[in-house]
Amino acid sequence: MLPLTNQQLEDAIRKLEIQDITTATIRQIVSLSKELEQASGEPFIHLEIGNPGLQAERIGIEAEIEALQRGVANAYPDISGIPELKKAGSEFVKAFLDLEIPPKYIIPTVGSMQACYTLFTLLKQRLPERDSVLFFCPGFPAQQHQAKMLGLKCVEFDIYNYRGEKLRDKLDEILSSGKFTAMIYSNPNNPSWTNFTEEELKIIGEAATKNDVIVLEDLAYMGMDFRKDFSVPYEAPFIPSVGKYTTNFILMISASKIFSYAGQRVAIVAMSPEVFNRRYPVLEKFYEMPNFGECYIFGVLYTASSGVAHSAQFGMAAMLREATKGNLNFVDHTKDYGRRAAKMKEALLSNGFHIVYDKDGEEPISDGFFFTVGYKDMPSETLQKELLRYGISAISLPCTGSKRDGVRVCVSMMTDPRQFTKLNELLKKFHDDHQR
Amino acid sequence: MLPLTNQQLEDAIRKLEIQDITTATIRQIVSLSKELEQASGEPFIHLEIGNPGLQAERIGIEAEIEALQRGVANAYPDISGIPELKKAGSEFVKAFLDLEIPPKYIIPTVGSMQACYTLFTLLKQRLPERDSVLFFCPGFPAQQHQAKMLGLKCVEFDIYNYRGEKLRDKLDEILSSGKFTAMIYSNPNNPSWTNFTEEELKIIGEAATKNDVIVLEDLAYMGMDFRKDFSVPYEAPFIPSVGKYTTNFILMISASKIFSYAGQRVAIVAMSPEVFNRRYPVLEKFYEMPNFGECYIFGVLYTASSGVAHSAQFGMAAMLREATKGNLNFVDHTKDYGRRAAKMKEALLSNGFHIVYDKDGEEPISDGFFFTVGYKDMPSETLQKELLRYGISAISLPCTGSKRDGVRVCVSMMTDPRQFTKLNELLKKFHDDHQR
Repeated sequence: MLPLTNQQLEDAIRKLEIQDITTATIRQIVSLSKELEQASGEPFIHLEIGNPGLQAERIGIEAEIEALQRGVANAYPDISGIPELKKAGSEFVKAFLDLEIPPKYIIPTVGSMQACYTLFTLLKQRLPERDSVLFFCPGFPAQQHQAKMLGLKCVEFDIYNYRGEKLRDKLDEILSSGKFTAMIYSNPNNPSWTNFTEEELKIIGEAATKNDVIVLEDLAYMGMDFRKDFSVPYEAPFIPSVGKYTTNFILMISASKIFSYAGQRVAIVAMSPEVFNRRYPVLEKFYEMPNFGECYIFGVLYTASSGVAHSAQFGMAAMLREATKGNLNFVDHTKDYGRRAAKMKEALLSNGFHIVYDKDGEEPISDGFFFTVGYKDMPSETLQKELLRYGISAISLPCTGSKRDGVRVCVSMMTDPRQFTKLNELLKKFHDDHQR
Repeated sequence: MLPLTNQQLEDAIRKLEIQDITTATIRQIVSLSKELEQASGEPFIHLEIGNPGLQAERIGIEAEIEALQRGVANAYPDISGIPELKKAGSEFVKAFLDLEIPPKYIIPTVGSMQACYTLFTLLKQRLPERDSVLFFCPGFPAQQHQAKMLGLKCVEFDIYNYRGEKLRDKLDEILSSGKFTAMIYSNPNNPSWTNFTEEELKIIGEAATKNDVIVLEDLAYMGMDFRKDFSVPYEAPFIPSVGKYTTNFILMISASKIFSYAGQRVAIVAMSPEVFNRRYPVLEKFYEMPNFGECYIFGVLYTASSGVAHSAQFGMAAMLREATKGNLNFVDHTKDYGRRAAKMKEALLSNGFHIVYDKDGEEPISDGFFFTVGYKDMPSETLQKELLRYGISAISLPCTGSKRDGVRVCVSMMTDPRQFTKLNELLKKFHDDHQR
């Protein structure tokens, strides 16, 4: 029965050996909510997981099946990527981001998780004095964990405090130390769904050039700023990218969300040619290869997994190609996330919640895959636990690097109209009980 | 025209920026041989690459296609492995190795490359004073590269000098320093195709227990010691494993060679339950998880790639399951490698070559995927270059950690009878010219 008692909640937390609920991994929160579902006998509303709540793009599946039938399973895939994927990636980037990145500089990875981990590996080595990464927060907690595993120092700042022109001084203040090899953000942002304005991307690009810091731009949710229509290939508006304002960039484009293809673990890295072709003495010595890009492919990616599943490369190649031809409208296909977010925001706002990260410049943020909410002045940990008692599972903002109070809401698991009814009921009860 | 001149060879080496041919990567040697094919206008005999030269197992392909049709592509795969694969792996290990490893301890990885890299990552952390790995040489060069990337110290010794009872003293001498977290070998051995005797595996297991060193046993070529018939599930003889003699072991079982499935990048780790359940304060603190196995799955593998392609997991599960049921005779299917090796050895031995690593105990080594040859007292570098001039590409023994002179021969690309005729002709010419 819901709500659960504090005792029931604390018992479950202890049973799962969770030391701190605000820094627990998403997977631990999933396990905890399953435990609490058992205790209450009622299914929970799951706002914690970012599993694509849509069917995988059929074009990818068919291309994979065809490749398997043709007999690609026995041969090691080219580590630098099959030619079809490199070409399709290059054209996709041109069609939707209006950036020129030739096929040579398009490299497949086992999801953007592998991309980020392996890029951090090499970025740590390129200049020994540059041992730090700047994280724009809030962000995806796994990326900070990756940096820590590699012994990189993590510096973070909350973007909410430095929107617009204020960002320039903040970046210069941090980056001028000469300690930073890279900076990283996702755009749209996980978890806040803020999107940088063109003005802000220009500031980031200029700071990257000025301070020789390489920008990792995570485009996991590209095109899902539904306030504009980015769905027409080779036509403005193009999806904003820092690649317009610096050559010091590396893009990570995952199939997981844009093509609902998380199961097959495939993404591409689109590396600025200038970054690829840089020579660093320490890398030449260690890898016995001439430039950053070759060291990445044949030194790091070879070491990490000897490449990406052959059929998945064909699948991603087909999806990128058909999107570029206008035959696969991935922006339209993911729009349902925006519709869900709008409905969920309505339910939350009418029950005393507020949006924590609420604006880009003067404009309200887009509806999309994630957003962030707070409840009055309730601290993050209390809010996360109270919501759990009422049958709603979410991750808290502190684990995303945010200093603000609130939780992240992910819309992806809300696939059934009955879940919206249930969410409304639970929120009403929550609000009634907490107003007294 | 073959042979090429020294000048032609040196020009090609310079053009590809290869600093040292004896330590170049396999991929660099492939590129070099392609360059030389252009220069000579003749196709080369490729003995350098270990691409499976057989068709992928149909059972795996069909299971992947079925899973894709069923709609697995959109959902993140369970990082600890889909239940079907965990169960099939456990039964496979019981049927062919006669080891009891429950499903919980079977974990998929993106090939054994990811397995080894990620296991090294955690093995480096478990006890800070243990910063070294012992490599049984000759071995697979990529694994030493992986250790170096992680900052692990690599110590190696040539097994040829310490076969049988001599191995005990050598291991104790090295491991008693207390600096070693792990030791690693492949069995059958890449490149020498030696196989440890049961006596030697017992010695290794006892040394592992005595010195708290964890054995990584790479079973990439399991069952391919064709001197015995390991093809009948649940019946002796079983494939030899150190798992019989210590609980300090982790097995790496790749689908790449046993199922000719290298393209889909899938393997399993079979971890001794005792290793999985160990608690280390430094790991508990860093990963906030209770034991070695949980840290491996949810700390390291999550970080490395968020798991293994969903369909590939279903494919491997089906192949393991059908092998265990006796419906997929992977030992028989790979026997052609043995037949090719026998023919190639004949050609080499009749033209002045000798087998470098020639015996296990008193017995001649098995015919299989690899073997090693020398030519009179010719140094490795000279032999590798001279063979290249005559149209034969191979990697040299020094890059495998061997101190002996010779090259590694891989039989996998010899799929056409005409290649054997050509190999015979080239070897005869080589031998004629070098006898003068």
